[in-house]
Amino acid sequence: MPLNHQFLLDNRPEGAATADNFRLVAVDTPALQDGQVLVRHHYLSLDPYMRGRMNDAKSYAACQPLGEVMQGGTVGEVMESRHPGYAAGDKVVGMGGWQEWSVVDAGVPGSLRKVDTSVVPLSYYLGAVGMPGVTAWYGLTQIIDPKPGQTLVVSAATGAVGSAFVALAKARGCRVVGIAGGPEKCAYATDELGFDACIDHRQNGDLKSMAQALKAACPDGIDGHFENVGGYILDAVLLRANAFARVALCGMIAGYDGQPLPLANPALMLINRMRVEGFIVSEHMQLWPQALAELSQLVAAGKLRPRESVAQGLAAAPEAFLGMLKGRNFGKQLVKLI
Amino acid sequence: MPLNHQFLLDNRPEGAATADNFRLVAVDTPALQDGQVLVRHHYLSLDPYMRGRMNDAKSYAACQPLGEVMQGGTVGEVMESRHPGYAAGDKVVGMGGWQEWSVVDAGVPGSLRKVDTSVVPLSYYLGAVGMPGVTAWYGLTQIIDPKPGQTLVVSAATGAVGSAFVALAKARGCRVVGIAGGPEKCAYATDELGFDACIDHRQNGDLKSMAQALKAACPDGIDGHFENVGGYILDAVLLRANAFARVALCGMIAGYDGQPLPLANPALMLINRMRVEGFIVSEHMQLWPQALAELSQLVAAGKLRPRESVAQGLAAAPEAFLGMLKGRNFGKQLVKLI
Repeated sequence: MPLNHQFLLDNRPEGAATADNFRLVAVDTPALQDGQVLVRHHYLSLDPYMRGRMNDAKSYAACQPLGEVMQGGTVGEVMESRHPGYAAGDKVVGMGGWQEWSVVDAGVPGSLRKVDTSVVPLSYYLGAVGMPGVTAWYGLTQIIDPKPGQTLVVSAATGAVGSAFVALAKARGCRVVGIAGGPEKCAYATDELGFDACIDHRQNGDLKSMAQALKAACPDGIDGHFENVGGYILDAVLLRANAFARVALCGMIAGYDGQPLPLANPALMLINRMRVEGFIVSEHMQLWPQALAELSQLVAAGKLRPRESVAQGLAAAPEAFLGMLKGRNFGKQLVKLI
Repeated sequence: MPLNHQFLLDNRPEGAATADNFRLVAVDTPALQDGQVLVRHHYLSLDPYMRGRMNDAKSYAACQPLGEVMQGGTVGEVMESRHPGYAAGDKVVGMGGWQEWSVVDAGVPGSLRKVDTSVVPLSYYLGAVGMPGVTAWYGLTQIIDPKPGQTLVVSAATGAVGSAFVALAKARGCRVVGIAGGPEKCAYATDELGFDACIDHRQNGDLKSMAQALKAACPDGIDGHFENVGGYILDAVLLRANAFARVALCGMIAGYDGQPLPLANPALMLINRMRVEGFIVSEHMQLWPQALAELSQLVAAGKLRPRESVAQGLAAAPEAFLGMLKGRNFGKQLVKLI
């Protein structure tokens, strides 16, 4: 069996995460038991939620255990199978973690899913037609639930979730305004992704400036917001929200490294009669087939062509992950393993 | 026509409201036109929402205009009628404002409603079987939507909304924990109103202490919360909230006098996958008949017997109102006018 390189969580961050939090090891891949398959990972997904799980704090998921392989989504190829539902050569998506190979109990529900790469590229199953895409779909359809013509805002607009969000929202006839970091990302958002406008948070780094930019970009106010960041951006959105606006709380990455970030004026949720709802998409698996079907159709129709940032080789994973947390990625962050 | 005493809003508060914000005047009641009725007010309702409307700020309702009669709910008796639907002697509830008499265009929908005082005392139509009761009903049934056995928390527990909330929630098989100010109110909450426990916020005046008190009173965590106050109480509730907890945001009186009160850790809404929703009950008039029917039945069955704080005479209205904002009332605050 092949030698397998893995990244373990070695210790927990104090403040910002660093490369020293991770440890690279090499282990032999164990022999397959009945019901197991051996998967060679082609791509590893890097996602902001991983940072939250590195903390030893109450969160929605069990925290990442110390000394174990960093958890994460993977796509790859079945190299050997002792499960009747899988054969060598099958392309599969799973939660293989930060490693080159995984041995999977393929009979466990949700452990592995065969995918069709005739239309949708394999890597997209970690992004637009995977967890990030379904995340955008859930927040849009199950919480924001917009009407045609309404104005929606999404932060981290050019990332995996944001790029799926705008495609799904434009298909529903909404005006969609993004928030992203830097002129290059903002130009890409409007020129390539279909955003009606995009606000550069680096040029609007405080509440007053962001609120003014939102007012200019959303002349009819904000009816729905998909929050990936938190902090002053959410404060600014609340200032421009219309009556009965909905906020899908997906991530608050701005506060992952240290003290909780307060919400300046929660009374605006009352004044605007808003609904603010947090969610985690893995708790709504019954909706995934419907979401993935729509996302696949958007890809097939050329209406969802997300950009990818691809780091090369497992050893590059920690720096790619830390860079993503700082917004240095441009589109869905992946690590290509072969 | 009778001489009518009125309180006008003379100027807006800077910081805390004071008696000088109001001005007492005497005017002649105008002669009735066709379609109008003359109502003599028996009781005037004093409610926390009035404080918010005294500010010249964006809010859910138009702010109280300067130089005009303070708006507010009233119950009284029709003394003279030029509308075919009303006759002298009818008992009615309306928005007569801080004055002794009102002339009402009775054909305007929602302007006046005849009430039955055979079982429900007239004053209750301003509290348990009126706007505050429907407010409790809406937040409980339309936002919190509890299951039997779940734990619910309500702040301002012994007020008009809190006392209706506990009766409605106990009827649904919930554990209900109140938050009130002082040992007398807390004893009344558990001994008379049916709360399973009541926390004295004067004895738990900071986040840590309140969170510990909530942990003790809610050993299974908090599934639903009805917020009348805001500030550190809401912060503490978020720390003890269960997954998928719901918060009905009804009032945030703690922040009415000055700077907005921040929410310390909004990421808890995400971590707990909570739904937080603001509402104003007057925007859901279609649900009032259903709510009022249940509230009337609870009163008739002796399961909802709210306490009232009754000030005597219109001149006492400002001091009674300011005292209520400081929590000096005990139960529904009314002004008895005759």
